[in-house]
Amino acid sequence: MCGSPTAASRLTLRDAGNIIDGMKIAVLAPPWFAAPPTGYGGIEWVVSLLADGLVDAGHDVTLFASGDSQTKAELRAIHPVAPSEWIGRSFWELRHVLHCFGQAAEFDIVHDHSGPFAAALSSSIETPVVHTVHGPLAGEPGDLYDQVTKIAPRLGLISLSQNQRKPRPNYNWVANVPNALDLSVYPFRPQRGDYLLFLGRMSPDKGAHRAVAVAMEANVPLKIAGKLQEPKEQQYFDEFVAPHLGDGIEYLGEVTHGQKVELLQHARATLFPIEWEEPFGLVMIESMACGTPVIATRRGSVPEVIEHGRGGVIVDDYRIMGAALEQADRIDPLECRRLVEERYSPLRMVADYVRAYETAIERVPS
Amino acid sequence: MCGSPTAASRLTLRDAGNIIDGMKIAVLAPPWFAAPPTGYGGIEWVVSLLADGLVDAGHDVTLFASGDSQTKAELRAIHPVAPSEWIGRSFWELRHVLHCFGQAAEFDIVHDHSGPFAAALSSSIETPVVHTVHGPLAGEPGDLYDQVTKIAPRLGLISLSQNQRKPRPNYNWVANVPNALDLSVYPFRPQRGDYLLFLGRMSPDKGAHRAVAVAMEANVPLKIAGKLQEPKEQQYFDEFVAPHLGDGIEYLGEVTHGQKVELLQHARATLFPIEWEEPFGLVMIESMACGTPVIATRRGSVPEVIEHGRGGVIVDDYRIMGAALEQADRIDPLECRRLVEERYSPLRMVADYVRAYETAIERVPS
Repeated sequence: MCGSPTAASRLTLRDAGNIIDGMKIAVLAPPWFAAPPTGYGGIEWVVSLLADGLVDAGHDVTLFASGDSQTKAELRAIHPVAPSEWIGRSFWELRHVLHCFGQAAEFDIVHDHSGPFAAALSSSIETPVVHTVHGPLAGEPGDLYDQVTKIAPRLGLISLSQNQRKPRPNYNWVANVPNALDLSVYPFRPQRGDYLLFLGRMSPDKGAHRAVAVAMEANVPLKIAGKLQEPKEQQYFDEFVAPHLGDGIEYLGEVTHGQKVELLQHARATLFPIEWEEPFGLVMIESMACGTPVIATRRGSVPEVIEHGRGGVIVDDYRIMGAALEQADRIDPLECRRLVEERYSPLRMVADYVRAYETAIERVPS
Repeated sequence: MCGSPTAASRLTLRDAGNIIDGMKIAVLAPPWFAAPPTGYGGIEWVVSLLADGLVDAGHDVTLFASGDSQTKAELRAIHPVAPSEWIGRSFWELRHVLHCFGQAAEFDIVHDHSGPFAAALSSSIETPVVHTVHGPLAGEPGDLYDQVTKIAPRLGLISLSQNQRKPRPNYNWVANVPNALDLSVYPFRPQRGDYLLFLGRMSPDKGAHRAVAVAMEANVPLKIAGKLQEPKEQQYFDEFVAPHLGDGIEYLGEVTHGQKVELLQHARATLFPIEWEEPFGLVMIESMACGTPVIATRRGSVPEVIEHGRGGVIVDDYRIMGAALEQADRIDPLECRRLVEERYSPLRMVADYVRAYETAIERVPS
């Protein structure tokens, strides 16, 4: 630490080649759920782990999130309670993002997780901004990011997987930082159970119906859990999943964290039969952390997240998932756990992000 | 006109003291309804009149609005159809605003009507931006504008009334530009009818219930028309308006433009018993345009919009509106019309805005 220099003097020190251990970092969470979230909210979990991890690593961290968040960082909130019922509304997002950006001069770096609006607005402030892209970059989201990066050319982008970058390889990428897990809440269990598990929201991309087909053909029980809220999710579920329930195929609804861990620990394997370019896929590392291998289709981030033959089995077509079961059975549960400990620990994620901040600061034109 | 110089060379010309007749102007409408709107949408009407009027005045105008808009200007749309069902959502607003700002270098000035989101983003572009504040500046909207003007200190703000500025007198105001009407669709009728009229959405601020009280005490029929969609509006209507209907007091629902004009033309007077700081109040000029005087409480923009004794009668308390009726009866319908022609014509509004653009461009640090 170097006392309390101004942002300018800190930059001067850095220009002179000095490495500063404690950076002043603003982490901007999405406003819609508390960090960590009480229910659904993958981004908020990652943001929460990151903010705590940066504090543990000796940085001076301020988390901009709703007032009902819990963090080791200094918490600054303009919304006392997460405005979940207004999710996606400009007014609430604008208040939250401007609350952070209005104080940006205090920080060496602003790390945005809130979304494309903050990313676009980043060109309004002097402080360097990095932005983690949490969604896909194909189709309409990609068109929006084209607009964002045009108006904010200095913005440093961070991907969750190399595959996520494929539609837009020429953006100003400063790092690839896979997500991480708090391993303490995913206890390892060396013994496996006898059923297959599908965890994920009810959507054709995620493929609960393909998991059903695999389980039926292999004549193995299947447990399904996941988000079923939107009308589209309900329609998909009613048409392609519900008719097959019973006779060993079970839908458990949306489960709590503890229930999820129990399901993972006692499964024979987790099925991940996606048919889209998944940017990351937290479920895969959740499963491996509990000692359960993943059988996944070769799409999106899958080949980067799973080590074929160690954390799971990667197949080219979901129709051979049944045949891959025995190969999955031979995978050592301990190796699944180790893979996650090696690659998906908060310590690794924090170190990656700190390097990303340094890269972004170095790229600022002097 | 001066051929097709770059924005920079145009600025140089301007710096040298030359007045350029034809400015390159981008007008940014809200994305939620077509301009002009087919139904509700006061801002979209004003934007539409302005864009057409600027073209008529010889400027090179591009209107950024949804693709179902109609305009004399060049129309550029990222949303082929106004995404009304997504009103207030960041994603749709961001796509629309960035579509304009990404092309801002083509223009001498960008005139935003879309809202605080674009106002905040204005600091991301070089082209000067002016922003008409269409809502109030007290309370939470004022807090949001404090954030916006902090991050976008060069933004030029335009008020609809001097009263609207009162909570925030120190903003970077470049002009006060009252709204205007397309007088051709508000035909004048010199004869008056026998009923009182209340036009406005169902809200305590607007005061349909006070209009009811005035009509009852004066024993004069009352016709009420206005927006009744939100649960809050319904609750207010059910509790404070509906019980008094019948016996000369009538609610006509939401009316079309033509029905509104007929109602205005045949009324004895329009009641405007507001109890809030109305930023402008289009209904007042709509009524006067048709030849019908307005009886209004002295709040918000009222003393600026009505000339007491000419276009209507201003009272300090709605309870003396009944007593003011005879004074309103003595007002010459032709004077009501003339007041609107003098002060609220599109020509006047267009000239005011052009001066505002010149002021904003001159304030840009060279």
